[in-house]
Amino acid sequence: MNQQKPKAVVLVSGGLDSATTLAMAQDGGFDCYALAVNYGQRHGSELQAAQRLANMADVPLKVLNLDLRAIGGSALTDLIDVPEGGTEGIPVTYVPARNTIMLSLALGYAEVLGAGDIFIGVNAVDYSGYPDCRPEFIAAFEALGNLATKAAVEGRPLQVHTPLIELTKAEIIREGTRLGVDYAQTVSCYQADERGRACGVCDSCLIRKAGFEAAGVPDPTRYQDG
Amino acid sequence: MNQQKPKAVVLVSGGLDSATTLAMAQDGGFDCYALAVNYGQRHGSELQAAQRLANMADVPLKVLNLDLRAIGGSALTDLIDVPEGGTEGIPVTYVPARNTIMLSLALGYAEVLGAGDIFIGVNAVDYSGYPDCRPEFIAAFEALGNLATKAAVEGRPLQVHTPLIELTKAEIIREGTRLGVDYAQTVSCYQADERGRACGVCDSCLIRKAGFEAAGVPDPTRYQDG
Repeated sequence: MNQQKPKAVVLVSGGLDSATTLAMAQDGGFDCYALAVNYGQRHGSELQAAQRLANMADVPLKVLNLDLRAIGGSALTDLIDVPEGGTEGIPVTYVPARNTIMLSLALGYAEVLGAGDIFIGVNAVDYSGYPDCRPEFIAAFEALGNLATKAAVEGRPLQVHTPLIELTKAEIIREGTRLGVDYAQTVSCYQADERGRACGVCDSCLIRKAGFEAAGVPDPTRYQDG
Repeated sequence: MNQQKPKAVVLVSGGLDSATTLAMAQDGGFDCYALAVNYGQRHGSELQAAQRLANMADVPLKVLNLDLRAIGGSALTDLIDVPEGGTEGIPVTYVPARNTIMLSLALGYAEVLGAGDIFIGVNAVDYSGYPDCRPEFIAAFEALGNLATKAAVEGRPLQVHTPLIELTKAEIIREGTRLGVDYAQTVSCYQADERGRACGVCDSCLIRKAGFEAAGVPDPTRYQDG
């Protein structure tokens, strides 16, 4: 049964968005291979969440180690404070070329697997400040991927799926809830503690909290003060 | 003096092509930052050569660790034999999405440095079998890079330079020799020993040997049987 499904690489982070993306890819009939990149995020709890989510979805998880702290340039990999409350423009939590790098690694893994589909949970609504979350960026990567590989040369096209790109956080949460995603297992916080409990005050926590509220779904997030 | 030169990231491997590319970038007036990726190549001698070349050129070298052996798919990262003598089509030494990944990392580093130029020593003459050495691939990456970053959004364009792309190996060697590159320090062999001495029989060695012969330049390569 599984052998007839098309293979897809799904980029996962352990967060709410990628957990939903994985559920949507499975619901769409793909045989999913999760790929997480350990790029020197501050907390290992994100990767532990990715492993729990992969186990629950019954898909293999591959973790690639790439220490982006060597090049720096982001609050997520450097030792500077992440912002609390709203920001304007491109946030300091932006990681230089992050999605270009993630998609490149997914492309390499897809080629090894013989997969023609990649899923990434980018979102242009809540993360409009990130240049590499925009639809035109994704389209340009797909064009690149269709020139970059042996598969492309041999006529097997690449498709990059971004099922969340136009959804609000509330819509993402509703869709994931419908598909049975256990959001208590996900970690979105930029400064979660070692047990994966969220701070409740960083940008990412605020967006997530408001999303559950707007979706009318009880927020299962484990907070540090909870 | 140096402060007025535009910054450029130069991808280096320790081989003949990237050593020449670095020399050409410096000759072109760029303030160069070398970037090497330790992706699980078989021999560390390649990275040692990259460090020697960076030292001789008096440029900083950044080494990023990314273990592509975790995804496999190539003779250069897997424990399968590299071919000796000619091959047709895409060689087994092709690393899935290699140049897409290298350029993505260079893009991230360029963004951190505030550099708008990236140099990569790809060559479409000797490596016509590699999809990611073709001019159309490079053009697609440049288009992507111009959508991917904060710099792009703010109107600072990215240029990807491929000074070797249309040159034969002999032309590369003549140009590097003119610019004073010490090719004895470079390692091109797919199965060099721990001291960087070449096997003399793999594809890469054969192309290199023939290049020195056609250029009419004495071959300074240190061979294992020498």
